[in-house]
Amino acid sequence: MDTNLPKLEVCLSPALLHLYNTKGVVVVIIDVFRATSTIAAALHNGAKSVIPVAQVQECIDLGKQIPDSITAGERDGKVAEGLQYGNSPSEYPRSFIENKTLVLTTTNGTRLLHMVQDADTIITGSFLNLSAVCDFLIRQNKPVLLGCAAWKDRFNLEDTLFSGAVVNKVKEHFTINCDSARAANYLYEHAKESTFIDFLRDSSHYKRLSAYGLSADMEYCATPDLHPVVPILRGNELVIHQ
Amino acid sequence: MDTNLPKLEVCLSPALLHLYNTKGVVVVIIDVFRATSTIAAALHNGAKSVIPVAQVQECIDLGKQIPDSITAGERDGKVAEGLQYGNSPSEYPRSFIENKTLVLTTTNGTRLLHMVQDADTIITGSFLNLSAVCDFLIRQNKPVLLGCAAWKDRFNLEDTLFSGAVVNKVKEHFTINCDSARAANYLYEHAKESTFIDFLRDSSHYKRLSAYGLSADMEYCATPDLHPVVPILRGNELVIHQ
Repeated sequence: MDTNLPKLEVCLSPALLHLYNTKGVVVVIIDVFRATSTIAAALHNGAKSVIPVAQVQECIDLGKQIPDSITAGERDGKVAEGLQYGNSPSEYPRSFIENKTLVLTTTNGTRLLHMVQDADTIITGSFLNLSAVCDFLIRQNKPVLLGCAAWKDRFNLEDTLFSGAVVNKVKEHFTINCDSARAANYLYEHAKESTFIDFLRDSSHYKRLSAYGLSADMEYCATPDLHPVVPILRGNELVIHQ
Repeated sequence: MDTNLPKLEVCLSPALLHLYNTKGVVVVIIDVFRATSTIAAALHNGAKSVIPVAQVQECIDLGKQIPDSITAGERDGKVAEGLQYGNSPSEYPRSFIENKTLVLTTTNGTRLLHMVQDADTIITGSFLNLSAVCDFLIRQNKPVLLGCAAWKDRFNLEDTLFSGAVVNKVKEHFTINCDSARAANYLYEHAKESTFIDFLRDSSHYKRLSAYGLSADMEYCATPDLHPVVPILRGNELVIHQ
């Protein structure tokens, strides 16, 4: 292990974030089912930007202020009252989202994003932009924290599996002395024997969302590199890193 | 999955404990390197009881009050000042510990133990008493929480791997809808291809403790079923469950 390389760590839940240094660090926000998948899809399909907000009311208010905006977000698997669209990456094809601003409210992912404001750089990651995220991290040559949004602070398989995929692909470029990163990588190695979605069918979140009829959505979210962009936070907006 | 079976969950860090119900639950405290390994060894080798305490001073004070007691505990891999012995399971052979009370101060494991006082039953687990713990849990037929002591609240491989070993062995007897339990089980399945210690050599704690010359100690801790007892908390003492 070359200890001159920048450090990479994995935080498995926002409730553990206080254990990690985020100052000066490149933080990857990971909310595979489905916020960061939807963000990658919308931006790749031509959205001008995505504005992540925590509350439904804030989403409605911003939607009124911003021309050509779409307000979106779900609560319990349904479009939240007062908003126009849901939190499914397949709802945002180019014909619909191009040149529009997506104001998106999600719970887990947005909360984590707001918790790491001292980071050097904040990007979002999902299987849909896995390779683009890995290439970006390698090029930055700075310390990295992979931040799993989890589910109401509970460890989840899908965000951890994605972290493991990143660890596996970038590990030669970083110093990794973090048991969470090691465990995530083991999960990834285990999952590689099937497809990501086969592995994730046994997760709590898959079971919860499939009960809402969202299985096809999750299959979409588990497909690597469909939307190869790096969403990066500039001010309060996520835009494509150029 | 038979949902009439009692629930089993895994808590990966004391910092996540608030997410779990412990009331009426059988909680297994897991601190593989090395508190719960030492507890199994001392009791199996004839210690009358083990009293886990958080602070060095409390350990010294209790040692003075209790006849035939041994005070033990380490800080940074060395016997703590004012105490007599360390935190190594191999320090407590029958010839030494029989009929004595071991007053043991550890940081991570003891802290977690004091956090779950509303549990139905509190026992301690380690590879040294893996099968005994599994048999006990199956016989109780109550909800179970496997509580990893972790390291300063950070997820660790060794406690999670032990949780996975338990999940793997008892899963037919419980309802498991917990991603932490699933991930722990995958780690265990991955580790089975080697020995536990081979798997754990890549952990942060192994690297930390081996720098203190404690490799043989950890090898001991990773050996299944050397000390087949179930330490159970009665009042403030751990004794063998009969």
